Amino acid sequence: MPDVDPATPVNSLSEEAVLAHILQRLGPGQALVGPGDDAAVLRLADARVVVTTDTLIHGPDFRLAWSSGRDLGAKAAAVNLADVAAMGARPVALFVALAMPPETSIGFVGELASGLREACDELAPGCRVEGGDLTSSDTLTIAVTAVGELDPGRAPVLRSGARPGDIVAICGDVGLAAAGLDILFDRFRDERGAAIAVDDAALSPSERVAVRGQLRPRPPIGSGTAAARAGATAMMDVSDGLVRDARRLGRASGVTVDLERSTLGPDSDRALRGGEDHALLATFAAGKVLPAGFRRIGSVKQAGLDPLTVDGRPERSAGGWDPYRDWDGAGG
Amino acid sequence: MPDVDPATPVNSLSEEAVLAHILQRLGPGQALVGPGDDAAVLRLADARVVVTTDTLIHGPDFRLAWSSGRDLGAKAAAVNLADVAAMGARPVALFVALAMPPETSIGFVGELASGLREACDELAPGCRVEGGDLTSSDTLTIAVTAVGELDPGRAPVLRSGARPGDIVAICGDVGLAAAGLDILFDRFRDERGAAIAVDDAALSPSERVAVRGQLRPRPPIGSGTAAARAGATAMMDVSDGLVRDARRLGRASGVTVDLERSTLGPDSDRALRGGEDHALLATFAAGKVLPAGFRRIGSVKQAGLDPLTVDGRPERSAGGWDPYRDWDGAGG
Repeated sequence: MPDVDPATPVNSLSEEAVLAHILQRLGPGQALVGPGDDAAVLRLADARVVVTTDTLIHGPDFRLAWSSGRDLGAKAAAVNLADVAAMGARPVALFVALAMPPETSIGFVGELASGLREACDELAPGCRVEGGDLTSSDTLTIAVTAVGELDPGRAPVLRSGARPGDIVAICGDVGLAAAGLDILFDRFRDERGAAIAVDDAALSPSERVAVRGQLRPRPPIGSGTAAARAGATAMMDVSDGLVRDARRLGRASGVTVDLERSTLGPDSDRALRGGEDHALLATFAAGKVLPAGFRRIGSVKQAGLDPLTVDGRPERSAGGWDPYRDWDGAGG
Repeated sequence: MPDVDPATPVNSLSEEAVLAHILQRLGPGQALVGPGDDAAVLRLADARVVVTTDTLIHGPDFRLAWSSGRDLGAKAAAVNLADVAAMGARPVALFVALAMPPETSIGFVGELASGLREACDELAPGCRVEGGDLTSSDTLTIAVTAVGELDPGRAPVLRSGARPGDIVAICGDVGLAAAGLDILFDRFRDERGAAIAVDDAALSPSERVAVRGQLRPRPPIGSGTAAARAGATAMMDVSDGLVRDARRLGRASGVTVDLERSTLGPDSDRALRGGEDHALLATFAAGKVLPAGFRRIGSVKQAGLDPLTVDGRPERSAGGWDPYRDWDGAGG
């Protein structure tokens, strides 16, 4: 369909035509069996497979006034790639279940496919969309499943392996996406709370970076396998805010994670509580040279009353964006 | 949460509490790493993995007046298990992204989890839900990804392997789910087209079987590996109607599939056009003994003008339920 008008609604096209439009933008895959059969077949480095699934929903997870199709495709890929990376694994394929209102334009769908591909090419070269599903829905929904492989003979890096004495380190942004979300909520909503288009000209350069960090995060995917090879004892991706996720890691490991506020930059509150950057939080035995991109932000202590402390003091705030808790039903 | 009132809406519970309620009903998994980390890790029979994803959406794919939570969980599992089976593979795990309106009751969610588990236990013993994702949405959405393994050294069975002279065979129901859908559409909708509750007492025994076939299909999952071991040359699951799917198989294989109407029972029109039973359609070299459950329904010819004929005559009707084409926006 080289000449289709991008404004054409998908329900005036056949499912085959919509699929062809998407596949063209995804480019050739690398699977033994790719799209077009009942299922895909992938060859992995060994007989273990890493699988994770995460969904973006119009309303709680994104607003179409803020996110382009390209942003959404890239974000849907990035958040899933980060979960694979956080196991110390290399992402090899994405599977995308796309449910769209019938009036969605084919141009938007093509942009979404391009965003998926761009994020794979940029963050996890070699990983491609190798299958998916198209259906109609009143609510635009992008459900992505990511599949990864481990280095043969190397164990996955779990949340539960941190030991007292370990260094706590992070790779990637913390608080940037939250700063971007605050800008969007404060300045790009109408009086009823619905999202309105972002005016780039009204943003300072650093504000623009923050908004981009929210709409199109770039987690350090390759650093997942690097951390595993460097002997990370525990790892997870920070999706719900550093306090919340570090607390989970501490609890899973049966230790106390102590973060040092002075390592978290000038906006340490936002670094502690903001989510959605998908940085990699990892622990390493003391004395290990941290892999490139990781920086020390604390240390692991014997389990105390709290699984998380900041500068030695219990830290019990919630942090992060929780669609269960925080979504008010507003759209845009 | 042993004592939670089943009517409690999920948005009055924490995400952790909802998850605990689900996991309790799913039972223990068999993964190297199961729910609770960033991703699951599974051990497979060899270094190839089979992956497929399929979504059920409230509106186009189901009506809550007709389907219980248990039915929906079981159907979401079954349709994905069938796609794995159709590759000649054995399903080992499901990953379930569940997006729910905030007012969904915890009882419904628990029933859905039970349905997922029941379908796995019944249709694909050993397969379990090993991970997933919970989020809020205006539209109830169940996106399932199924993961399977192949017998070591055995190739997946593709759609493209049918050769002239092969037998065409099927395993499982054809037309039953469509008969059930017709009953639901004809007799259990209000004047505006919205679904209303099914009155079991108003159904004859055979009608009840048909309605169950629509709401809770039971595809012959184990017959997928059996067909592969018996040398199936091509295979796919019949989700969109026999005419549509047999045509796809013919086209992918570069042959003409000729079906024999007399083999399709008294309601051969519905058998030809009805979808959603998820029977396994396969081809075998002439003279092969068909594996248990498969019955001959036609033969493979040299490619003619049409990839599908019935009793030698071109068959060009559409068939099947297509949410793109057929959903009128009605709910219930």
